[in-house]
Amino acid sequence: MSARFESILNREGFAAEKSKMLAEVFTQSSMDGVTSHGVNRFKRFVEYTRNGIVDKNAEPVLTGKFNGMEQWNGQLGPGILNAQFAADQSMKLAGEYGIGCVALSNTNHWMRGGTYGWQAAKKGFVFIGWTNTTGLMPAWGAIDARLGNNPLVIAVPFQHEAIVLDMAVSQFSNGALELKAMNDEMLSVDGGYDEHGQLTKDPSAILAFKRPVPVGYWKGAGLSLLLDLLAAMFSGGLSVHEITKKETEHSLSQVFIAIDLSKLPNQSSIPQLIENVIADYKQSVPANAEAKISYPGERVLQEREKNLQNGIPVLENIWNEILNL
Amino acid sequence: MSARFESILNREGFAAEKSKMLAEVFTQSSMDGVTSHGVNRFKRFVEYTRNGIVDKNAEPVLTGKFNGMEQWNGQLGPGILNAQFAADQSMKLAGEYGIGCVALSNTNHWMRGGTYGWQAAKKGFVFIGWTNTTGLMPAWGAIDARLGNNPLVIAVPFQHEAIVLDMAVSQFSNGALELKAMNDEMLSVDGGYDEHGQLTKDPSAILAFKRPVPVGYWKGAGLSLLLDLLAAMFSGGLSVHEITKKETEHSLSQVFIAIDLSKLPNQSSIPQLIENVIADYKQSVPANAEAKISYPGERVLQEREKNLQNGIPVLENIWNEILNL
Repeated sequence: MSARFESILNREGFAAEKSKMLAEVFTQSSMDGVTSHGVNRFKRFVEYTRNGIVDKNAEPVLTGKFNGMEQWNGQLGPGILNAQFAADQSMKLAGEYGIGCVALSNTNHWMRGGTYGWQAAKKGFVFIGWTNTTGLMPAWGAIDARLGNNPLVIAVPFQHEAIVLDMAVSQFSNGALELKAMNDEMLSVDGGYDEHGQLTKDPSAILAFKRPVPVGYWKGAGLSLLLDLLAAMFSGGLSVHEITKKETEHSLSQVFIAIDLSKLPNQSSIPQLIENVIADYKQSVPANAEAKISYPGERVLQEREKNLQNGIPVLENIWNEILNL
Repeated sequence: MSARFESILNREGFAAEKSKMLAEVFTQSSMDGVTSHGVNRFKRFVEYTRNGIVDKNAEPVLTGKFNGMEQWNGQLGPGILNAQFAADQSMKLAGEYGIGCVALSNTNHWMRGGTYGWQAAKKGFVFIGWTNTTGLMPAWGAIDARLGNNPLVIAVPFQHEAIVLDMAVSQFSNGALELKAMNDEMLSVDGGYDEHGQLTKDPSAILAFKRPVPVGYWKGAGLSLLLDLLAAMFSGGLSVHEITKKETEHSLSQVFIAIDLSKLPNQSSIPQLIENVIADYKQSVPANAEAKISYPGERVLQEREKNLQNGIPVLENIWNEILNL
């Protein structure tokens, strides 16, 4: 899969190194079971580079710096590359200042946000990052979608891998809704409202009417508003209401915060601390025979293991569309 | 109210300056409508100082520092004073490094988390902070309470006040459940499970059986786990499973992150950016005639205004208990 992605991107005119990085991230996300932002999204990414929404040659430029806090303009380059750069830069700052924050304006969709969490945690950093999006969700008590679902990622190192929370602040991410809709499946819990204002488990109805439920109702709506404000303020970029006015989603604002654990006085005891927390967590008494007590990211690791053995499952029509790009 | 609190605390042996600060915070929380962590909690706070859970003379000590990242041991001093100190210190660090993080171990309940957000935002800082708690909530799919509800606060300056998100990661905070139970009221949405494993709006049942619903189900459970991990890792202090073993909740771990907006190159345009976001938010179309579209903290300001005019409403039995302390 990665080789195919890479050759397509090379043919599209990406620099060789960029093609390789992009192909790896799209493939890894698919391998990890996040096909909605992996193989299923690849075609749209290529189309966005063709119609100029994504500038395949653009590189981020520094627009402001004060010690551990930096502002970069992503210049509408590929979201994955901009985000990888910003995450790396936040780790550099963390190495210098203990904690580092890079805010990125004018970027494109970072695809799977967890990507940057897994990478940073495997290098020994704590990562906290989020992005804003186009309007996908109403304010609490409202019907028109003025809030982003603004995915939030928090990652910490764990054993040879990581614990990674990767959550949109809607109950289901747009990617998850799209995947469920494509597979003609219902959601496990109510995910939003239908056209009659009734709560529903039908992903297509929620996508059509743009009324997903925020996590925790009013709480997730509030969290969405704050994450958007911080992303726009820190980066000097656009906020959700401005992005929503665009025909296609671009010019996003993102935040990347890294903490260098090796700089903490208790660094040597941190791995055991995490082991102990997870060991206790795993002693939870399941509510029923089907319940599995998983930590954030654990199912990703299981999916990865399965796909490494059996290959990445891809829908035939999706793959054919990619071959025809 | 504040004078009464202050005189009680002085009599209990607090240093005069500390009595004053504590009395002001308990009063302001009550004024802002958060009585669960204001007047309704004052008696318990005094009792905790009497039985030694809270050391009224303790002051935080620095246990580690690397530029913008600091670790302090709260030495089981009053949670409010430790938290105010840590929040102030995070702002100092932000002034030096752009972003600053203070992690606090061995502290006590900070009462209303929003306190530190309102204060920091009014000084021109963005504030992100959270605390862990004793086990109050099960892992997703489990029945035994091994997760904290770990309140998270995010605040930004707005006009002469602030936008402040102050949310426990359970659908309802313990304080909110206690207040509703005391007033014999039902919750607006399901807040947890009863003893039969059924979702319920009865706050007493949820408190008794310790199965509140996390915000966003599995998402809030994951967020709780990560916030606890970060608090314990950054501070070198205890995590929820260790705190849960104690008979009463103490020795908490907390995180205080501040960003100094005056250090950003776009600082002059930030107030207008926030105005524009809120103006758009306020254009939301309400779902029905009763719906009010409020930003986080807006109802606090309304409550404060009302109580400034009419006085702070206090339950007679609560006030009598305080008078009898």
